[in-house]
Amino acid sequence: MDARTIGIFDSGAGGLTVLHDCLVTLPHEDFVYLGDGARCPYGPRSTEEVRRFALEVASYLERAGVKLIVNACNTATAAALPLLQERLAVPVVGVLAPEAHAAVQATRNRRIGVLATEGTVRSGRYAQVIRTLDAGAAVLSVACPKLVPMIESGGSNDALVAAVREYAAPLKEAEVDTVILGCTHYPLVRPVFERVFGRGTTLVFSADETAREVAETLARKGIENDPRRDGECTFLTTGPPDDFRSLGERFLQLPIPSVDRVSLSELELEAA
Amino acid sequence: MDARTIGIFDSGAGGLTVLHDCLVTLPHEDFVYLGDGARCPYGPRSTEEVRRFALEVASYLERAGVKLIVNACNTATAAALPLLQERLAVPVVGVLAPEAHAAVQATRNRRIGVLATEGTVRSGRYAQVIRTLDAGAAVLSVACPKLVPMIESGGSNDALVAAVREYAAPLKEAEVDTVILGCTHYPLVRPVFERVFGRGTTLVFSADETAREVAETLARKGIENDPRRDGECTFLTTGPPDDFRSLGERFLQLPIPSVDRVSLSELELEAA
Repeated sequence: MDARTIGIFDSGAGGLTVLHDCLVTLPHEDFVYLGDGARCPYGPRSTEEVRRFALEVASYLERAGVKLIVNACNTATAAALPLLQERLAVPVVGVLAPEAHAAVQATRNRRIGVLATEGTVRSGRYAQVIRTLDAGAAVLSVACPKLVPMIESGGSNDALVAAVREYAAPLKEAEVDTVILGCTHYPLVRPVFERVFGRGTTLVFSADETAREVAETLARKGIENDPRRDGECTFLTTGPPDDFRSLGERFLQLPIPSVDRVSLSELELEAA
Repeated sequence: MDARTIGIFDSGAGGLTVLHDCLVTLPHEDFVYLGDGARCPYGPRSTEEVRRFALEVASYLERAGVKLIVNACNTATAAALPLLQERLAVPVVGVLAPEAHAAVQATRNRRIGVLATEGTVRSGRYAQVIRTLDAGAAVLSVACPKLVPMIESGGSNDALVAAVREYAAPLKEAEVDTVILGCTHYPLVRPVFERVFGRGTTLVFSADETAREVAETLARKGIENDPRRDGECTFLTTGPPDDFRSLGERFLQLPIPSVDRVSLSELELEAA
């Protein structure tokens, strides 16, 4: 048994969909969530910058004494996961390999689609991990630049459906039977993806698969908390706490009682 | 529901330890096991030859109409899994990635040892897959040329314990806390490994992890057989059936009622 907290980070509030699934799977664990709101989004930034930010944030969590870190940001996982794993002593689970593994297990015709941000698609990491597991799988990745802004602004459903249809079209054309939704924002509009792709397509979401990976990892390492207790969550952000709370409650699908601010200088100073 | 059989192959009888664990996990599935006894062992052969043999055997199973193929030979997985996955339409699960994944999940100090045959160690595939999942993991692989002949001949336990101690020494020196037993023969002498490494070390066996991977894959693809039925096993070998049966019953830990012979020309002709 291990009473230490689990750390989860993302550039903003999107990773709260991962926290939501972790809470469903592991209600007896404590979590600390750190959103790097002051420097969000990571998507348009250079790989080098994303690496530095991810290392600062993850190092802060390690110093706080967590037992495991979840990199709940697809962009930061694609850019920085190996670096974090090399630099930190605490294990770091990313959101990418669990989905790739699930997609390889699920596909029947071995044609897998990926919908993600431009940075994630450009990194090529999904295709790489999928091909490590199944060298004969065909992978088609489509960048979806419109979706994150639309989901965050909570705009018209018609425009969102039209955008999803547009991004889905080449995947349907290629007859993929399994689609990885490779961005933590996408579970918020799960019904739209379900309707556009229909019953014949298996949808793989980061949040589900990462929670499963975290649960298996804790069990195999023997570092689970007492299953009879109720876990607690702490929320931290480098940006304005009120912004985090208002967006975060939609992603977490629960009220967020309080959010504490971590100053960037605290991250940077201590990482130096 | 899918009533088709699952195919499992190995160079000889070693993969029956994988079949054993599949039968425990999936008692309602039918299996056909094909041992390439006429050309066993694969270990000392060139990579090119192993690839050709594995492709012939796996193609034979695919033509027999199986729904999934398990490459239950560590040497053939290291040498030929990507080729099989590229060439065949049916999904192929190997014995290597499931163990690497389990070891990464299990280790607490992120130091992982591998004990395997010379060919498997030389391929470097375990270290490669482990580092894809955890770039910060330290991997130490030790080739164990004496173990397979000792296990097959069923010789003295003292000599076996001495050999295991010898191969374990550098892993203990390096303070690994998790050891992959990367050869299908090793589960037969599981108690020796358990005693040599002691309680503090997690042992990861191909057979357990591969059975788990197969079960998850069938479930995710929705191609499981009816769970209320009892499965059946068929045994095929390219070598002498009596040799296969006498060695095989030790590996399977069950009587093998009948073994059918497949001629090499049948494999070669049909693969051409």
